[in-house]
Amino acid sequence: DKCVHSTPKNTNVRVSLPAVCFVWQIAMIILFGVFIRYDDESDVRLWIQHKLDHNITSDIENDFYFRYPSFQDVHVMIFVGFGFLMTFLKRYSFGGVGFNFLIAAFGLQWALLMQGWFHSLDLTTGKISIGVESLINADFCCAGSLIAFGALLGKVSPVQLLVVTLFGVTLFAVEEYIILSLLHCRDAGGSMVIHAFGGYYGLAISWVLYRPNLHLSKRLNGSVYHSDVFAMIGTLFLWMFWPSFNSAITDHGDGQHRAAINTYLALASSVLTTVAISSMSQKKGKLDMVHIQNATLAGGVAMGTAAEFMITPYGSLIVGFCTGIISTFGYLFVTPFLERVLKLQDTCGVHNLHAVPGMLGGFIGAIVAAAATEEVYSREGLNIVFDFTGSFANRSVGTQGGFQAAGTCVSIAFGLVGGAIVGFILRFPIWGDPADDNCYDDEVYWEVPEDEETLPPVLEYNNHMIHKSESNFSVEQS
Amino acid sequence: DKCVHSTPKNTNVRVSLPAVCFVWQIAMIILFGVFIRYDDESDVRLWIQHKLDHNITSDIENDFYFRYPSFQDVHVMIFVGFGFLMTFLKRYSFGGVGFNFLIAAFGLQWALLMQGWFHSLDLTTGKISIGVESLINADFCCAGSLIAFGALLGKVSPVQLLVVTLFGVTLFAVEEYIILSLLHCRDAGGSMVIHAFGGYYGLAISWVLYRPNLHLSKRLNGSVYHSDVFAMIGTLFLWMFWPSFNSAITDHGDGQHRAAINTYLALASSVLTTVAISSMSQKKGKLDMVHIQNATLAGGVAMGTAAEFMITPYGSLIVGFCTGIISTFGYLFVTPFLERVLKLQDTCGVHNLHAVPGMLGGFIGAIVAAAATEEVYSREGLNIVFDFTGSFANRSVGTQGGFQAAGTCVSIAFGLVGGAIVGFILRFPIWGDPADDNCYDDEVYWEVPEDEETLPPVLEYNNHMIHKSESNFSVEQS
Amino acid sequence: DKCVHSTPKNTNVRVSLPAVCFVWQIAMIILFGVFIRYDDESDVRLWIQHKLDHNITSDIENDFYFRYPSFQDVHVMIFVGFGFLMTFLKRYSFGGVGFNFLIAAFGLQWALLMQGWFHSLDLTTGKISIGVESLINADFCCAGSLIAFGALLGKVSPVQLLVVTLFGVTLFAVEEYIILSLLHCRDAGGSMVIHAFGGYYGLAISWVLYRPNLHLSKRLNGSVYHSDVFAMIGTLFLWMFWPSFNSAITDHGDGQHRAAINTYLALASSVLTTVAISSMSQKKGKLDMVHIQNATLAGGVAMGTAAEFMITPYGSLIVGFCTGIISTFGYLFVTPFLERVLKLQDTCGVHNLHAVPGMLGGFIGAIVAAAATEEVYSREGLNIVFDFTGSFANRSVGTQGGFQAAGTCVSIAFGLVGGAIVGFILRFPIWGDPADDNCYDDEVYWEVPEDEETLPPVLEYNNHMIHKSESNFSVEQS
Repeated sequence: DKCVHSTPKNTNVRVSLPAVCFVWQIAMIILFGVFIRYDDESDVRLWIQHKLDHNITSDIENDFYFRYPSFQDVHVMIFVGFGFLMTFLKRYSFGGVGFNFLIAAFGLQWALLMQGWFHSLDLTTGKISIGVESLINADFCCAGSLIAFGALLGKVSPVQLLVVTLFGVTLFAVEEYIILSLLHCRDAGGSMVIHAFGGYYGLAISWVLYRPNLHLSKRLNGSVYHSDVFAMIGTLFLWMFWPSFNSAITDHGDGQHRAAINTYLALASSVLTTVAISSMSQKKGKLDMVHIQNATLAGGVAMGTAAEFMITPYGSLIVGFCTGIISTFGYLFVTPFLERVLKLQDTCGVHNLHAVPGMLGGFIGAIVAAAATEEVYSREGLNIVFDFTGSFANRSVGTQGGFQAAGTCVSIAFGLVGGAIVGFILRFPIWGDPADDNCYDDEVYWEVPEDEETLPPVLEYNNHMIHKSESNFSVEQS
Repeated sequence: DKCVHSTPKNTNVRVSLPAVCFVWQIAMIILFGVFIRYDDESDVRLWIQHKLDHNITSDIENDFYFRYPSFQDVHVMIFVGFGFLMTFLKRYSFGGVGFNFLIAAFGLQWALLMQGWFHSLDLTTGKISIGVESLINADFCCAGSLIAFGALLGKVSPVQLLVVTLFGVTLFAVEEYIILSLLHCRDAGGSMVIHAFGGYYGLAISWVLYRPNLHLSKRLNGSVYHSDVFAMIGTLFLWMFWPSFNSAITDHGDGQHRAAINTYLALASSVLTTVAISSMSQKKGKLDMVHIQNATLAGGVAMGTAAEFMITPYGSLIVGFCTGIISTFGYLFVTPFLERVLKLQDTCGVHNLHAVPGMLGGFIGAIVAAAATEEVYSREGLNIVFDFTGSFANRSVGTQGGFQAAGTCVSIAFGLVGGAIVGFILRFPIWGDPADDNCYDDEVYWEVPEDEETLPPVLEYNNHMIHKSESNFSVEQS
Repeated sequence: DKCVHSTPKNTNVRVSLPAVCFVWQIAMIILFGVFIRYDDESDVRLWIQHKLDHNITSDIENDFYFRYPSFQDVHVMIFVGFGFLMTFLKRYSFGGVGFNFLIAAFGLQWALLMQGWFHSLDLTTGKISIGVESLINADFCCAGSLIAFGALLGKVSPVQLLVVTLFGVTLFAVEEYIILSLLHCRDAGGSMVIHAFGGYYGLAISWVLYRPNLHLSKRLNGSVYHSDVFAMIGTLFLWMFWPSFNSAITDHGDGQHRAAINTYLALASSVLTTVAISSMSQKKGKLDMVHIQNATLAGGVAMGTAAEFMITPYGSLIVGFCTGIISTFGYLFVTPFLERVLKLQDTCGVHNLHAVPGMLGGFIGAIVAAAATEEVYSREGLNIVFDFTGSFANRSVGTQGGFQAAGTCVSIAFGLVGGAIVGFILRFPIWGDPADDNCYDDEVYWEVPEDEETLPPVLEYNNHMIHKSESNFSVEQS
């Protein structure tokens, strides 16, 4: 180790970080002032009118009551789920949960604008109307960038992360428009538009930012006992609320109901196969926390597209079964391979949790769509589930399946190309990223308290315990 | 200690754990394929038909919107609540939260089948229909086995836990059928069917698996500071969401509303009496985290049956008041007594948190039912709350009270007898359980990261801090 | 340090704490027995009648379904949000989360009574009717005392905290009655009645309890790495669920919908400006966890009054923008100033998170109310949002704005005067508070487990690791 030295780098972000935060936040305020308004169901005047126009007698029919509980679950996934999943590193927990917080808080504002321009701009008034469904979509949109963060964890500065998010949200809105509006795909839980896109976006950025001397930070690229327990908070909140994620914006009634059931089952199945493969792979059958924290979630990712379809309960179990295996194998063999051969450093293994299961989810959705029958769905049901209305009224399920597959490819292409471009932008030496021997370290961007190891001896200020002032253990004496 | 040696044991589960996971998950897929279908409210074709048949105009009347928020709260209790409550041991946090995850993910699938066969098998089609209420019931059913896990924590292998769950869920479905269908008891929050059953089931297993030399693992049978804080995450999520647990499957409208209020009040009352007894029992009035983590929940357990009845707000406070006291006394006196005299090792004290409060909850339910009057409930109200319909249309509240008490006894009997049998099965020397000096230790079944104590010195790689290379504290030098 | 000695104090609460808990809990049972009953929507007989009287056909119109998801989010904020936010101190995590639990569990019972007497006492029957909205209000009422706890953290005994809560809840109910009923202010999320009141209440108490030798406990007045991560659990659950807090008791339909959107946006904006100011203030632009944990929430506090108004989405962003800056500046400059000049010790900085943003929120509400127009709200909308009915039917928005401002002053006055009086009560030497060199220390009121540093060496009992018995690191040898 002594022979290889990394170039010292300037990690001072005292000008750049506040500047970016202020400029972007002020831009948000101006753009919101110009474009964003309450929608029919959140504006007091319009809601009164809306109830009259649609002959609605009870406020319970406001979309808020259909979607707000799911929204809050998604919100928890974005901030606590993703945030705590990334606390597993021994000295990057502040960065994991803190930068996740920053990215998402910025990203959701930009997402409301970008998605608004593409999906709900009223061309007469020039305004975007927002309601609870917009908030869910904004959270979803951030998820793409947070997934990318997983591949970059510990290796980039907060300023770079804000750049990743600015472009990530922008690319997301465009690919989403192409996939959902132009190709008319269904992707309620975002296997394609969120996971495949976000995963490949992060991987492409990480590939461009390859650090040949990253082994200099190897001592910090791992967990300690309690950081693994913190990460389980993230895992479990993601796992528990994934049924809400996949059902949050599906059709009212049976649509939300079925999506939640399917996702619940796929996730349960993933847990069993993840445990099986993890145990098989280790001496004495010991389980690896990395697998339990991540691969157990693969079933949720892979059900992102098909959850609202009539995939059947056992179909959901099969999806979870296979993706749990594939994801765990990914952590065991593919991530090391990618690093060694493709020079791709993927801190959290987003390749195995998001990119591949997301891609598979897209193709599963294509197959399930193509296999849909009038017998199972009824004609009206097919029209509702696949939204065969307007100019798509005559589309067949086979055609729909083809478009779903095409949509998956579009999301991957956007991720890879967009990520490569953003990666090159991030290579400019102005962003304050850490040196190769300084990665995975909260010291670089955070005021870190004294270490617990150097806690002034409880032994001494505590009268109830044996006096140990002569202990070699005591730091003061050294 | 040096004189007593435990027999070395083979804790290798590299074949058995993957085998069990795969075999059971494949069995689940096959059985789901044969039996499980979406119900009327989650199947797109059937929901369209259902709305026509029942003259329903708005999707908001789908049962999803009545129960999904409660379902998600229950889900959090099962995975984060139970899981983190069991992280309190200093070196068994991975096992606590991780095995809980495995048990519940398997158990809920088996529960959907078992409960389906007993309660919603359509004899014409041979199919079971599932919806959000089924998911809640499946989570409930797992809770029985998770409670049993609490008595066994740290002393069994994951393979044994899967066996405990297989039998636990099976026994649960049978006793639930007897209690709810044959005896026609009401038990919305499961004081009887979940807590009394699960508690005695775990105690009986633990009694059969008694380890005379468990003191060899004594060094690990306790908490450290931060593991106690982790456990409070579990406690609080259980405590906060218990109103949802007890109201999740009660009647729409006033039933769910009242059950939530009653549980909220009983839990608040438990906290005060737990603190009081805990403080009285210790030198200088210091509080014991074991009590705060557990006995504060006793009010929720004890309201599991009566929460949906008109027990009155002050009645709820009284229930919480008494059970908080009883549970804390249990931790102080009964658990040590059971261990010394009955040779019963109960790691988490499920006797005090689940078995006894659950039993009490059953009898409280019996009394409150027997005391119900037409004046308070109205005739129609009595019929709704106690479901006096069909062949039970003429049952009196006194009779109902008697059956409630009988149901409590059935649940205890099932727990004790079933647990004893399962305990003997688990004594076969094939399950990979740990040796007596190796209990409560994640090292046995998990790849555990380097300990925090052996963290490579922050002192050295951190330039901002005083160089302390000569410190005796530094591990490398020793 | 050696020269200044604090007076030894008797911190034994073995009589007083159980006595207070028992007496108050028994009082609650008696008062609930006399006064508290289920309301129309949670009583089985009354709900049947209510549905008939109001021609309600579906149980989904029970207020439970409008408010229960929000209630559970608020409940999480009170117990996990506030509780974990106060775990940041290195050795006061038990006290932070545990005393928070005790305070809230007592406070919510007393709040149901106090708020019931003032707001929903039926003078004919002499009874108070409670439902889900009462539970939300009770949780809100506790929040005032929990905020005050933040200023006192680590410096008072649990008995003192129960006294703070008894008076805090009482004062809250009175000021709330004056502000909401007499002045007819709107304050859905409680900028005035909760945050400004609670903040100034705590500050006044802390000011009276000034400890000149508190520096003797300085070694414990700070965080360690993992305690800061625990505190982020609190921060994030507060941050995520604040939209539910501000919308929980607003009008059905557009009212809840709009309040959630506004709060969501204000909070996002606060994060960016908090990060900006935090980074500007530190060497190399490093972020300070104290700011991230607290000031990011200021936008939610400041939107407590105006969230239900038509403040517009960009208006919400502006509120978050400004309060994020003000709050972070508060942590940087005002708290040290208050301590040095005003002799005011504010452990958690509630001045910056609650008192000032709450006060600002009150005035923002006044301005937004005064600026309301019929064009934006419609006449009917104005009447709904500002509840211009009954004797207030002819109030103008300008007048309403004036009363909102007056209400803010009332809440501050109640906090300051009430807090000063309670502070003097707490100075009696009977409460068991800790000595100046014993603050911020769980050892005083909790049975604390062995420290992690003194964990019996993993190094030794673990066969898989290199034997290090000669290490100086090993405690046993010293």
